[in-house]
Amino acid sequence: MAGTKRTDSDPSGVGRRGFLAAGAGAFLCTIGGENILVGKPGDAAKADAAAARVKRPAGAKSRPAATVPGADPVDQLRFGTPTPQPGGRTREYWIQATAVVWDIMPNRPRRDYWHGMPVAGPTNFRAFVYQEMTEGFADTKGPAAMPGPTLHCEVGDVLKVHVRNALPDKYAQAITMHPHGVRYTPDYDGSYIGDFTRAGGFIGPGEEFTYTWEALPESVGAWPYHDHGPNHTLNTMRGLYGGIIIRPKGAPKPDVEKMLFFHSLSPPTTGLTRVFQCINGRAYAGNTPTIRAKAGQDVALHAIGMDDNFHDFHIHGHRWHKDGGSFMTDCQSLGPGETVTARFVEDNPGRWLYHCHVFSHQDNGMAGFYLVTR
Amino acid sequence: MAGTKRTDSDPSGVGRRGFLAAGAGAFLCTIGGENILVGKPGDAAKADAAAARVKRPAGAKSRPAATVPGADPVDQLRFGTPTPQPGGRTREYWIQATAVVWDIMPNRPRRDYWHGMPVAGPTNFRAFVYQEMTEGFADTKGPAAMPGPTLHCEVGDVLKVHVRNALPDKYAQAITMHPHGVRYTPDYDGSYIGDFTRAGGFIGPGEEFTYTWEALPESVGAWPYHDHGPNHTLNTMRGLYGGIIIRPKGAPKPDVEKMLFFHSLSPPTTGLTRVFQCINGRAYAGNTPTIRAKAGQDVALHAIGMDDNFHDFHIHGHRWHKDGGSFMTDCQSLGPGETVTARFVEDNPGRWLYHCHVFSHQDNGMAGFYLVTR
Amino acid sequence: MAGTKRTDSDPSGVGRRGFLAAGAGAFLCTIGGENILVGKPGDAAKADAAAARVKRPAGAKSRPAATVPGADPVDQLRFGTPTPQPGGRTREYWIQATAVVWDIMPNRPRRDYWHGMPVAGPTNFRAFVYQEMTEGFADTKGPAAMPGPTLHCEVGDVLKVHVRNALPDKYAQAITMHPHGVRYTPDYDGSYIGDFTRAGGFIGPGEEFTYTWEALPESVGAWPYHDHGPNHTLNTMRGLYGGIIIRPKGAPKPDVEKMLFFHSLSPPTTGLTRVFQCINGRAYAGNTPTIRAKAGQDVALHAIGMDDNFHDFHIHGHRWHKDGGSFMTDCQSLGPGETVTARFVEDNPGRWLYHCHVFSHQDNGMAGFYLVTR
Repeated sequence: MAGTKRTDSDPSGVGRRGFLAAGAGAFLCTIGGENILVGKPGDAAKADAAAARVKRPAGAKSRPAATVPGADPVDQLRFGTPTPQPGGRTREYWIQATAVVWDIMPNRPRRDYWHGMPVAGPTNFRAFVYQEMTEGFADTKGPAAMPGPTLHCEVGDVLKVHVRNALPDKYAQAITMHPHGVRYTPDYDGSYIGDFTRAGGFIGPGEEFTYTWEALPESVGAWPYHDHGPNHTLNTMRGLYGGIIIRPKGAPKPDVEKMLFFHSLSPPTTGLTRVFQCINGRAYAGNTPTIRAKAGQDVALHAIGMDDNFHDFHIHGHRWHKDGGSFMTDCQSLGPGETVTARFVEDNPGRWLYHCHVFSHQDNGMAGFYLVTR
Repeated sequence: MAGTKRTDSDPSGVGRRGFLAAGAGAFLCTIGGENILVGKPGDAAKADAAAARVKRPAGAKSRPAATVPGADPVDQLRFGTPTPQPGGRTREYWIQATAVVWDIMPNRPRRDYWHGMPVAGPTNFRAFVYQEMTEGFADTKGPAAMPGPTLHCEVGDVLKVHVRNALPDKYAQAITMHPHGVRYTPDYDGSYIGDFTRAGGFIGPGEEFTYTWEALPESVGAWPYHDHGPNHTLNTMRGLYGGIIIRPKGAPKPDVEKMLFFHSLSPPTTGLTRVFQCINGRAYAGNTPTIRAKAGQDVALHAIGMDDNFHDFHIHGHRWHKDGGSFMTDCQSLGPGETVTARFVEDNPGRWLYHCHVFSHQDNGMAGFYLVTR
Repeated sequence: MAGTKRTDSDPSGVGRRGFLAAGAGAFLCTIGGENILVGKPGDAAKADAAAARVKRPAGAKSRPAATVPGADPVDQLRFGTPTPQPGGRTREYWIQATAVVWDIMPNRPRRDYWHGMPVAGPTNFRAFVYQEMTEGFADTKGPAAMPGPTLHCEVGDVLKVHVRNALPDKYAQAITMHPHGVRYTPDYDGSYIGDFTRAGGFIGPGEEFTYTWEALPESVGAWPYHDHGPNHTLNTMRGLYGGIIIRPKGAPKPDVEKMLFFHSLSPPTTGLTRVFQCINGRAYAGNTPTIRAKAGQDVALHAIGMDDNFHDFHIHGHRWHKDGGSFMTDCQSLGPGETVTARFVEDNPGRWLYHCHVFSHQDNGMAGFYLVTR
């Protein structure tokens, strides 16, 4: 047992490092049927290697053969491509999946502005993100950042999203974009399902695919999108996610609107030595999004869980109708992929904290500032 | 420390086996006042032994004596047996608690149909389940399976449920059936509460008890029932649960309706070497329930948590009114014993995944197929 | 490795003690920028020492200087003190933060009244609590107990809460009182935010501060308050919390109303050898609150999470409108700081269990009795 860090002064048998790695960050992935425990720094490379071994399923080219084990007549169905409702329009996006060196705490010196204290680095790791491009992928349009670009549309519209897999060769593996909230046929589900995979469920290295999704009346709200390819768990955890906002036809945009993804970046994912509890890939107030509004404005903040944990969205000095009903809350729990929308007319100037109310998440960076002017 | 699996390449000190056992499956049981840590294969037998030592409480025969520590006048109350409301009827069920060798992955070869890959066995363990019987327990009527039979009734009806403890001698211990949602007097609560236990809170080996429950207007919905006897935690985790569906008087049954219990089967419970994240006791798509519907049908899917974890019910290609309100969701979290109902008119043919959106649950089997024809 | 408790018969490498300490109780605190792992008995003292080192921020005396890193014009805003709306009144409370030897199981002999069995001690630890005082802190008025006094007011009222830091010298550190639900300016937020801290965010040893909070129409409900000073995570976990109930103007009080805080008291917090899953700082039925009502009464039970875990509030024999909507539940999950209100007209006499439906929480004490007379 030489070399282990446990000592008799740690009778729990779970040292600090173990606590961080196992308690907060380990997860099991099924990748092309291989079980990969991503439990410590370095394991992500094993998951990547497994993902690189996943072969393009036959169904991603044509429909699944009737002879595939478990095949059903529904696998032979053919689907069209939806078009906008009368009066609706097509909203087009070009987005590439790419790798980037991502800094969880970009401010220098690294500082927790809540507690006014320095935080030790390093805080960089290799993230995968969705990046907005100009038409035809001619040039970059937005940053390579977490979250990816927020897709906007109205009920009756169609979202046409061109996705390119621009991951570097070193990480060669298929990715996809799976949306929540919108309506899509199986071809545009963006999910790898082995031999049952349809067209958009496997965008191989260097390839492009165009998703076409409909905004139904029941789609109104804020939703996530994320990778749902062969390596979706690790990829989502390292940044391959973004948001969709769908409004009723002609509805005004809130004066202030923000997507806030709550998720952890842990050693197995990042190769760093500690867990960061993040909002939009950043940890600690001043690094996480600082939201700004002024009194009288219509504010909509959308919190979405994007890891294996449950979180709890709390804003100081404010409260909202839970799920739009009569029950008032200022602290609402949210699971992975689940949306909590805090919407209110701003009436309270000052510097406010917003944070996850899970205490150890808040203490590990899952907090930010909300600044309201008169 | 010879024989342990930890090595220096696992600085967390928590090996794969430890991760599986402690991170996902260990739980503490209080059984007749004994504290049993069910933390690894073999511990279930200790819990069973403790349960076998629990003596029939005096209160299970008559009312608790006024001299029992903590006794209150309410313990001397007498209750009748409810009868149907005018126009209502009695719905009668015969159900036995029994043990069965349960296969978490019954398809051969064992296969994860999502990823199209084999999964290694073994996947069998000794489960406890509720099984529907014909009138008077004359014969078996339904399978010995997870979940137990779904009990159906309408508002104003009475559910009369005859329960027999048919566990093999090897597992001799008291069981009960505790329902959610319905109204019951303390005699029909189906809960062991030591000296305060009433008639239906201790069905000893070989015994029978008849529960009588009322369906109130406020009972409309889908609910779980489960063991709440001396060994309820372990027994519920190894399969002793089922569902109740209560409709308004005369309300039509949805065209497609399914109870989906989300729970883990872990090494301490099963004696197997790994955790399976299950739906209705099965893991991995193709083994978990494959749900079928066709366009235009009224579909109701009821997800209920039935272990120590929180889950998150996601269906691809569909969305629903969260808790019947105005907020739309396609991903709703659920705790132990808590129900999430996804109800919608089917409008989207194809092969769809439904799964827990907790990533490592989804990757460990908590996923299934939903097949929709035109 | 001499002295450790692990043996080859525990292949998980996580012994009972490790399971209890790490699985249920460890948490990381950021205190004045120091990262303290509170992971085992004795670590709380390290957190206290770190808290004692936190210096009064400049902003707690005046407004933050414009030269503070990250300072914003909002930090120079000046705020008044709110007064009641026309027809409203000021409700005044005097409350001290103090330390007390708290018994998790005060009944003797220590007994789990659910299972009718003895529980081994010790069950005492040094808790921090809010205690109600008479006007001007002249004398004690209420017990030094968990939860602190429930603050009551109506819409249009102002809550004026005088808080004194009466912690013993041994624990000398700043505390605060941060409320949920009410409206407050940044001066009355009760949150330590380093250099941005306003007046009420740092009540040093022996000091007093008066918070003034407004009850808005949107504040109706039951809410927590808790420490949000430099050592808030540990302090909240060891008892520094209480409740606020706000009613519409002139609304009648329910016949029975109870705040029920769900939280764990674990070895790192208590120095004891095991975890207790508690309701209001007590574990096991008969020690946790025994609630009493009679048929026909209007009953309101408010469950609030107050640790790092998610819980699930279940009451036997009863059900309620989830969040006041149309969906009925008898089992509703709740996160840290989040409120679940079960409100119903009592119609079911008898002895009932209420408990967390997370099985291992229920088995470790998170349960109580609800006694209903005819």
